[in-house]
Amino acid sequence: MKSLTVALPGREYDILIASGILSRTGAECRKVLPKTSRILLVTDSNVAPLYGKTAEESLTESGFTVRTVVIPAGEPSKNADNLVLLWNEAMRFGITRTDAVIALGGGVVGDLAGFAAATILRGVAFVQIPTTLLAQVDSSVGGKVAIDLEAGKNLAGAFWQPKLVLMDPLTLNTLPDVTFSDGMAEVIKYGCIWDSDFFRLLSRCGNRAGVMERIEEVLYTCCAIKAKVVEEDELDTGLRMILNFGHTLGHAYEKAYHYETYTHGQAVSAGMCLVARLGEQLGLTESGTETAIRRLTAAYGLPTDIPCSLEDYRSAIGLDKKGSGDGITVIFLKKLGETLPKKLAKKELLNLL
Amino acid sequence: MKSLTVALPGREYDILIASGILSRTGAECRKVLPKTSRILLVTDSNVAPLYGKTAEESLTESGFTVRTVVIPAGEPSKNADNLVLLWNEAMRFGITRTDAVIALGGGVVGDLAGFAAATILRGVAFVQIPTTLLAQVDSSVGGKVAIDLEAGKNLAGAFWQPKLVLMDPLTLNTLPDVTFSDGMAEVIKYGCIWDSDFFRLLSRCGNRAGVMERIEEVLYTCCAIKAKVVEEDELDTGLRMILNFGHTLGHAYEKAYHYETYTHGQAVSAGMCLVARLGEQLGLTESGTETAIRRLTAAYGLPTDIPCSLEDYRSAIGLDKKGSGDGITVIFLKKLGETLPKKLAKKELLNLL
Repeated sequence: MKSLTVALPGREYDILIASGILSRTGAECRKVLPKTSRILLVTDSNVAPLYGKTAEESLTESGFTVRTVVIPAGEPSKNADNLVLLWNEAMRFGITRTDAVIALGGGVVGDLAGFAAATILRGVAFVQIPTTLLAQVDSSVGGKVAIDLEAGKNLAGAFWQPKLVLMDPLTLNTLPDVTFSDGMAEVIKYGCIWDSDFFRLLSRCGNRAGVMERIEEVLYTCCAIKAKVVEEDELDTGLRMILNFGHTLGHAYEKAYHYETYTHGQAVSAGMCLVARLGEQLGLTESGTETAIRRLTAAYGLPTDIPCSLEDYRSAIGLDKKGSGDGITVIFLKKLGETLPKKLAKKELLNLL
Repeated sequence: MKSLTVALPGREYDILIASGILSRTGAECRKVLPKTSRILLVTDSNVAPLYGKTAEESLTESGFTVRTVVIPAGEPSKNADNLVLLWNEAMRFGITRTDAVIALGGGVVGDLAGFAAATILRGVAFVQIPTTLLAQVDSSVGGKVAIDLEAGKNLAGAFWQPKLVLMDPLTLNTLPDVTFSDGMAEVIKYGCIWDSDFFRLLSRCGNRAGVMERIEEVLYTCCAIKAKVVEEDELDTGLRMILNFGHTLGHAYEKAYHYETYTHGQAVSAGMCLVARLGEQLGLTESGTETAIRRLTAAYGLPTDIPCSLEDYRSAIGLDKKGSGDGITVIFLKKLGETLPKKLAKKELLNLL
């Protein structure tokens, strides 16, 4: 087992990474939730048949009363209707302020259940059990929870730190290749923005099987980087923006194809490649960086280019909530392992594209 | 003008109390929102025709771009549909993270708009301009924001402190007597739980006109007490429960009559009288306290008794979110100006009733 602590003052919590830890869910939760009696377990239609019973049984054995809510798998479930459904379900269940919500699933389940936890009775305890690679290395760490609105993704939400994050790498074995690759884009991102040694390690692993041989180390490294960034900048007003490397353009791709053709990770992958190229063109980024990123993302089955019209870029940049006013901060790389955030006028960025 | 600072570390804010301050809304907001360009102004169908234009014009003069959203007046508006409406309206308006939401109105507007502010883009700046006595002395101070669910009031929400609270006592002149009295219940409550001199001052004022002669002092005293309590216990895990004096039974009355027959203040008034009587019966409360409270609430046109079945008490206590598990903390008075919180089994409390 590997473990690390996210050291936010007054709200610190542990991330536990261990094969098979899912079957010890109850015991681990009991340590951080000594007074809790009821748990609202939120999961989705993909995950429930695979891991729902294991989690439920373990929680029940540790004396929790569990009610499970299964939402349809997929991004469209991250909506206001399901949030209201969870609120009402929690009330019917009789949740009190000492009770808790657990998210068992990928980023959609984590973000939706986390936002519910942040707002039920003005906030109850929350535990994340991410079951996808993307959720394990990204969305389950950092406390950002949200739902999508008609105007875009993650537009209503909160910052709500979990009491505990449990990661069982065995749950990754049931992921389709495309979903595993989806998470690899974020894994590669950590190498790009923070740790060139890690980038090289991923190059050596070479493929999914290679990564799974060292999965606890890979998860630990990603979470440790994200934890450091989040500790510095919980509320996303500074350093945390480096986590958006590849994401501004990635959002444009996701949006242009109506979130259907490309996964988040695929879009981020192409976004990282393009921003590396732009950085080299502008003389901001060490030469060869783009090639290295293209090679590594391709090795994990990720796209390096996604066609996108200027109109789509324009619309995505205008609505991008990370921007404030007319400017937008683009995260360039100085070199592998080091970022160079740069504030551009939105028009300036459009001209570059 | 009177002003006080709510000293929450990192999120301190001022409460400004002054006749006519509404027409200086823009200038006061600009001081705390130097970078804001867009303001979503939320108000209701009662307040908009009276004070909407004054606030809008003042904000526009100070360089803000304002979009006003008018919700129907009344508690039923504090619902999930209106929350989603505000989210979508904010997005159509193009709000960014440096923009702000302003609530102009009573507690319903403040709670709804505040919850929207807490969750739009994971939280934007919020300014309260309470226009009812109840909102000025209670809901606009302390950062509790929420909506109602089918199961009860304030069941989904957040803690979200404003950047500024502006109170214009002139807005109280347009309140119907019943709405003014509604607020007086909470004003009297502060005397009961914290300050017997203030209780006696209210006795001397005698009626609405008497209170309005000293309104800045009255508002200041109430807000100063609430600010002290909130500073000690922002997240409502201890001291803040004393603010619930009269409220547990008050909730029972509101619920028993489906929130239609009695206002919040009327219900709290009868709740304070009954809990004072129970306290005297149990030997917890100084003799004569009940009589003093009955006399003062009656002077301000508030009910001292509300008929309620045991079944209604039971249902209200069972769902009361301040309770955790099977126990419930009842705020008794030791004497006027001093509380004596006591944890009872819910059954024990029912037996007393």
